[in-house]
Amino acid sequence: MRSRRSVDVPALVEQARAGSSRALGRLITLVENAHPALREVMALLAPHTGQARIIGLTGSPGVGKSTSTSMLVRALRQRDLRVGVLAVDPSSPFSGGALLGDRIRLSEHSLDPGVYIRSMASRGHLGGLAWSTPQALRVMDAAGCEVILVETVGVGQSEVEIAGLADTTLVLLAPGMGDGVQAAKAGILEVGDVFVVNKADRDGADTTVRELRQMISLGDRTEPGLWRPPVLKAVADRHEGGEEVVEALDRHLAWMQEHDELDRRRRTRAAREVEAIALQRLRARMGEVLGDGALAEATEEVLAGRLDPYAAADQVVSRVAG
Amino acid sequence: MRSRRSVDVPALVEQARAGSSRALGRLITLVENAHPALREVMALLAPHTGQARIIGLTGSPGVGKSTSTSMLVRALRQRDLRVGVLAVDPSSPFSGGALLGDRIRLSEHSLDPGVYIRSMASRGHLGGLAWSTPQALRVMDAAGCEVILVETVGVGQSEVEIAGLADTTLVLLAPGMGDGVQAAKAGILEVGDVFVVNKADRDGADTTVRELRQMISLGDRTEPGLWRPPVLKAVADRHEGGEEVVEALDRHLAWMQEHDELDRRRRTRAAREVEAIALQRLRARMGEVLGDGALAEATEEVLAGRLDPYAAADQVVSRVAG
Repeated sequence: MRSRRSVDVPALVEQARAGSSRALGRLITLVENAHPALREVMALLAPHTGQARIIGLTGSPGVGKSTSTSMLVRALRQRDLRVGVLAVDPSSPFSGGALLGDRIRLSEHSLDPGVYIRSMASRGHLGGLAWSTPQALRVMDAAGCEVILVETVGVGQSEVEIAGLADTTLVLLAPGMGDGVQAAKAGILEVGDVFVVNKADRDGADTTVRELRQMISLGDRTEPGLWRPPVLKAVADRHEGGEEVVEALDRHLAWMQEHDELDRRRRTRAAREVEAIALQRLRARMGEVLGDGALAEATEEVLAGRLDPYAAADQVVSRVAG
Repeated sequence: MRSRRSVDVPALVEQARAGSSRALGRLITLVENAHPALREVMALLAPHTGQARIIGLTGSPGVGKSTSTSMLVRALRQRDLRVGVLAVDPSSPFSGGALLGDRIRLSEHSLDPGVYIRSMASRGHLGGLAWSTPQALRVMDAAGCEVILVETVGVGQSEVEIAGLADTTLVLLAPGMGDGVQAAKAGILEVGDVFVVNKADRDGADTTVRELRQMISLGDRTEPGLWRPPVLKAVADRHEGGEEVVEALDRHLAWMQEHDELDRRRRTRAAREVEAIALQRLRARMGEVLGDGALAEATEEVLAGRLDPYAAADQVVSRVAG
């Protein structure tokens, strides 16, 4: 029996890059669990990253995210692209396992070796994406997924966060439900690069499309040279509109390349990722320093009213960072 | 005209401690805005802190938090205690100003010089308390509020956070609404020291009380010596039950003092506060270091696949913390 620690990371990386879904899945699990091998995984994968197009997909509960994902996967597979799907579920305390509903809706693709589907629970903070989401995307990228769809329910900050992870953000809406107003309120107008009104066979679809277009044209995104987000219609559960959506995504990609926007987004993303890890590291280091009694001492001074919390924090910081 | 920066902090502190609501309000605004004078404020206040009893008050929307607060304020004023109310509104983007509804419900106390009422918007993260909440509590404490009620709507993590700020946490519920189950789900059973079923003149109040008591007795808090949270009834808008609630709060205080729990909670709180400020400081310092191009360099290495984000973060950290 192999011990849990002695993971053969180079072998896993090789297998994942050769197309093994099982190896890819194991690598993501290592990342997700912050396994001791995490750093080795990331180091070995680094040279292979930066190839995938990352498309964020978000929308309120009930707009049909899973069926839309399935529709897009089919359209992308018709172009023979290797597709990864990362479904981040902010409500689920479970991780790595199946989100039953999603799996059923995506089951059409489950036997396709060109499609890798993974669910992740969001951890850390409410409605937010897991800290490990960007690392999981890196793994899928390095393993050869040419397009990765990151799907999350648009609650709280998650749609803003997903926009920070993606090259292109697709916002899904459905007719009615006051979605237009909701969209404006939640700030998704600002994060969406492409809008899709799903369930377009229902009453009110045209109204929703019109409202959205109007709101977009009222925004500050109509200056020459700026991308004007298209608003498309789809009926995802009948796979109607997938091709058009993929074309719109392509146009957005071309626009980004033309305007140096893709590099800018990826640069910002990498910088944030590095920053977040660095901060995590500093926090850990502070924990070590504080373990030696510095925090307890500083706290007593605060409780006694001899120091205010800011002055006490100065003392702590000077021990961590000189 | 005085410039914004030249705040006479010692004078404000003196006035606030002498009972000026206006001075107290200005000090909180300085804190809330992270004004340059913030550190001076905290330093001058430190020797006067640690006197106030801080009572957290939380509950789902609609349970009657503001009327309950008003009821408690009246009961505390009958004991001639100086009372502070800090209403933290996680949904409001506005700050320092009036939350109209709250103000109306608390207007009974608005002319009482022994009551200071302040609303704060929560900032930072969704459903969470503002980073400045603990500092605002310090200001009210140092200004002579003997009891401070911190009120927040129980959504997301806020009830857990408020428990971290308070000496005693009071959880409000109302009959029906499946509150019992909700309570268990949200983990408020663990954070509540005193439970109050408000609107107890409504149908189902006794059932809610019974369910709650049952859930509490099922918990792990019935061991000898442990505090067993009482479940009380109130009709806050008729001021029925306020005295009983204040008595329960007193019993909890006495129990905490007897079991060294008050010191433990305050120590934990101060330690967290210092830690949070220290981390904020480290983050700022990282920002300075990163400003000199280190982050840009590290990011380019990541984009080029020559470094993974963890290795890049190491480089950044070594520049911040040696």
